This record gives sequence, C-alpha cells and structure tokens, in this order.
Amino acid sequence: MSSEISESLKKRYITVRDNGLAKIFKVQDEIISSIRTFLKNEGFIEILAPIIGPATDPGIRGAKQATIDYYGFPFKVMSSMILYKQMIITALPKVFALSPNIRLEPLETVRTRRHLTEFRQIDLEVAYATCEDVMELGERMLCHVIAEVKNKCREELGDRIKTLKVPKMPFERYTYREALEILKGAGINVEYGKEIPWEAEEAISRMHSEPFWITNFPATARSFYYMESREEHGVLEDFDLIYPEGFGEAISGGEREYRYDKLLDRMLKSGDNPADYEWYLDMLRIGIPPSAGFGIGVERLTRFICSLENIWDAVPFPKVAGIPSP
Amino acid sequence: MSSEISESLKKRYITVRDNGLAKIFKVQDEIISSIRTFLKNEGFIEILAPIIGPATDPGIRGAKQATIDYYGFPFKVMSSMILYKQMIITALPKVFALSPNIRLEPLETVRTRRHLTEFRQIDLEVAYATCEDVMELGERMLCHVIAEVKNKCREELGDRIKTLKVPKMPFERYTYREALEILKGAGINVEYGKEIPWEAEEAISRMHSEPFWITNFPATARSFYYMESREEHGVLEDFDLIYPEGFGEAISGGEREYRYDKLLDRMLKSGDNPADYEWYLDMLRIGIPPSAGFGIGVERLTRFICSLENIWDAVPFPKVAGIPSP
Repeated sequence: MSSEISESLKKRYITVRDNGLAKIFKVQDEIISSIRTFLKNEGFIEILAPIIGPATDPGIRGAKQATIDYYGFPFKVMSSMILYKQMIITALPKVFALSPNIRLEPLETVRTRRHLTEFRQIDLEVAYATCEDVMELGERMLCHVIAEVKNKCREELGDRIKTLKVPKMPFERYTYREALEILKGAGINVEYGKEIPWEAEEAISRMHSEPFWITNFPATARSFYYMESREEHGVLEDFDLIYPEGFGEAISGGEREYRYDKLLDRMLKSGDNPADYEWYLDMLRIGIPPSAGFGIGVERLTRFICSLENIWDAVPFPKVAGIPSP
Repeated sequence: MSSEISESLKKRYITVRDNGLAKIFKVQDEIISSIRTFLKNEGFIEILAPIIGPATDPGIRGAKQATIDYYGFPFKVMSSMILYKQMIITALPKVFALSPNIRLEPLETVRTRRHLTEFRQIDLEVAYATCEDVMELGERMLCHVIAEVKNKCREELGDRIKTLKVPKMPFERYTYREALEILKGAGINVEYGKEIPWEAEEAISRMHSEPFWITNFPATARSFYYMESREEHGVLEDFDLIYPEGFGEAISGGEREYRYDKLLDRMLKSGDNPADYEWYLDMLRIGIPPSAGFGIGVERLTRFICSLENIWDAVPFPKVAGIPSP
C-alpha cells in the first residue's frame, strides 16, 4: 500500500488532473472563504502568519520540527503559530490567520490517512476570552461553514450532500477523564496523563454521528502554553473538537498561560529548555493579556466535509511522512 | 542604524504594541480581502500554496534558498510557488493563493528598507492566458484594491488618503530597453542583459507618479520558466509592475515556457541543474498547457498603500536579513 501511495504522490503532476480533485479544491475554496466571512463578521482581523522563527510550538505529538540555517541561527519552520498569537493580541484583540505548518511526522503516520507533514490551520486568538467563549464561537463557525458549503457546492459535493448535516448546537462535551471512561467501555485503555492516541481518537469519533468536545486534558499530555485549571491542579483549561464518523480531531485550543512564573514552571516540568524560548519568555516577563483561541486544520476539515478516505486528496500538493513528493 | 533596526526587530513583542502598526495591519487585512473578492469575481479559485518541496524558484536576485532535511532529502522552503502554479493549472485553469516565501537576502538589503526574508505573495496563474491578459487584470486589480482601501480605511490611512490616488488605466509601459534609456538619461547605467538593480529601480520609480510596467526583460536577467519572445530572440514575454514615488517593484510575472525541449535548453543556459528539477521536467515531458500569471508582494503593496518608509512596518512578525528576530 505504502509504495502505491508513494508513487501516486511523487507523480502528483499526473494524479492532480483527476476531475474529482478539482471538485474537492473548489469545496476547499468555499470552506476557507466562508470561515473568513464568518470571522470578519465577528470582528476578527486577518493577519499574515509567521513562516519561520527562532522557536515554534513543541506540542506536536511526536512529530519533529524542521530546521533551517538562518544566517547562522537555527530557525524552525512553524509547527504552529501559537507563540505568535500571544504576541499579536497585544496589538489586535481578535485575530486570525491562514497559517502554514510543517511537522515531520513519524513514518507510520502514512497508515492513518489523516496526517500530512505540510498543512494549514485557520488559527485564531481572542484577548481576555475564555474557553467557553471560543468553544461557542467554534460551534457556530463549524455550523456556518457546513451550511454555506452545502448551499454553494451542491454539484461538487455529489452524494456527500445527503449525509453531511449541519450539527445541532450545543455540541456534546466530555472531559478527558470521561472520554477515557467511554474508551474503556469499548475495550480501549488509555493511561491517564497521556495524549489520546490517534487510534483511540478515531474509535471514539466512530461512536458519534455529531462533532463533540473533549475538554480538560492533563497538563502532562499537552504543551506549556495552556492555562492550568483554577479548580483542579494538573488539569488544563483546553479542548479538542472531534469530528464524528471516525474523522478524528478537528480543533485544538484553550486558554493560554500568560503569567511568567507559572509559564516558566510549566516549561521546566514539560522538559522544554527556557533558553530556546528567549523572546517568548521576555515577552511574558513584560506582560501580555490572558487569551483563548484555537486552530482548525484546513485539510482535515476538507477531508471531513468531502468525506475523503485519504487526507492527501484534500490538498493540491500533498506531503506525507517519508515521501519526497513535489 | 542597522543595530537600532536589529534591536527594534528583536523586541518586536514590545514594538508591535504601537497603535500605528495596528492601523497598518487593519489596512493590510482590507488589501488582502479586496484582492480575494476581486479575483473570485473574475472566476479564480483560491488554493493552498506549497510551503516546502524538492525544488523552488531559483530566480530570486542573489538571495539564497532555505533548506530543510526532509526525511533525508534536501527540501527547500518555497522562494516562490511558480513551478507549482504550472502544475495546478492542469486541474484548475484560474487559480490564486496567498503563498508563503522565504528568501535569505544578502545582508546589505537591510539598507533598502524594502527587503524581507519572509514574505507573502498573492500568486495567480491562468491557463492559456497571455501577458496582455494578466497585465490588464493586474491593472484592474490594483485600481480595485486602492479604491476599496480608500473607501473602507479612511481612519486608518490618515493623511495618506490625500496622496493615494486610484491610478489611471492603461498604465504606462516601457520595454526593458526603454527603461535602460530612461535611466541612462538620468546618469544611471545598467548593462544590457542584467537585472535592473534595486537602486536603479528605485530611481526610475521616483521619476513617476503613477504605476508603470517594464516588459520584455532579457533572458539572461531572468529565470528559465519565462517564455521567450516570438519576435526577438533572447527577450522574454514577461513584465514587472513598478510603483511610483520610489516604492519600486510591485508585480513580477509573464508567460511561462511549457515546452520540454525549450525549457531544458533555457535551464542549461541559465546554469541550473536539470537533476534538481526532476518532477518539474517530467511534468513538462508529459505536457502542460501554456499559461501566464504573476505574483504581487503583500508587504510591498501594504508599504506602498500606507506610504511606509520601512517594509518591516508592513507585517506583524518581520524578518530582515541577518537579524534573528521572532
């Protein structure tokens, strides 16, 4: 299977001519457009996302960052723009960007059919917002996008239009602890404190016909920039949105730690080296407002909306772990 | 001067809080929005631009490409998506993207105040189009954007609104040869066959109060992917749009070479190694349609519209040659 995928991706300049793909790219255009329209109506400003920088998001589930030589300095290609979102909200309180991301995923992710090494997120952040605020926003945004795409891409969606429903709000919510219980009931054991592995995430996704939230991940499973819960030590004010039907993670986000001492403490506990985050720590020392936000993967949203088996059909120039495709 | 710039950029998390910058970012949002609206009305589909790949645009005027280790393969961060535009028009005949670009410029470009090492283009391409087609489109697009921004960003533009005029169409046109004559008349000698250096480009830009085209650059000054003129050997079917008032280059584009034999010949003459462009050459061997297109730098357009001295004020997270800023 893997060598077939590899051949097909390396010859993308032939396979891209499939008329089915052109339809998907038209749907994707409408997805991005309708998100932008929605966010602008909510008062968001679109900014230009960073591409490279001295540091980037370390919380990328076992993937590696890509490094370039930047005039003698080791710079990273952004794995996510989270650290920069905390900077820009000091200038603009409600921002979003179509952000480019590189994550060198482990080779075995080719099998998942939902991991790309090059992908984009609609990344948003709101100063002084809470999880509640941005989760409610995320629900309305997803409903808006699905309604718009169903309305404007009837032909491109084909049969999918019959099964693609605008979800009912509010979406169901489970805490991480509750999600582990559900998985246990299905015979899948996830150790408390660890990230939910993609197989388990896919399994719980398959048990649902509507998108749902998993909230309050343990601090040990996530990166240093999430705010710890005021109510329970070691638990975060964060959330993932999971698509139904086995499509897995849609959104990842939460409230951000903005207090220098607490952040430094989290960073040391997570094993990250403060010297690698010099500008970020100096920024927190000077002071930034609290905020909340999330990122939604554009290719995964396209995969879900078009009901695609393979994520590499959801992007014109797909990059999959280990395959040197154009 | 350079150390002041360096300090200011390294502490971007402080300098970004200037209220003047927030206004510029709001104008930039409107610039990008109005270009998107314009292009969609013209029937363009927005696609997701590549971030990395085995090869990228070599025609970057003395700048260096950034390289990452991609599972043992040397991959480049895109310096422009030109090669990929020729691929995607086989699936969608009119496309555009907000494309991320990295060009490691020579250190002396800090002085120009118009070079960033990280920037974005609105990159567009049209199958079966000619230079005439996309130049006419470019003129209407620029007029549309300026009119929209003047209309919607009165407060943010401040005094600039008085001097920012919607240009008169059609824009003036000079061939490269004529541009060299104009420069010679002003005491600036550019050797025929070379790229017009930025100082000379700035000088000719200062002589104008409206944007203007320079067309038909010599093949020796540009990269292998431009089509050679049917009328004059060694001259290209290409164009730059130059802003007035000293702001320099706005747009670069042209008709593309799509014939395998001719392209290979150009590649060999320009000193590029065909082995570095394996997928691209294989794609041309199989066959692609002719096309024309251009890229317009988003930060330089913002600099011109807002009349900014420094390009690093035209982007939230600026990167300038040699300076390891966030």
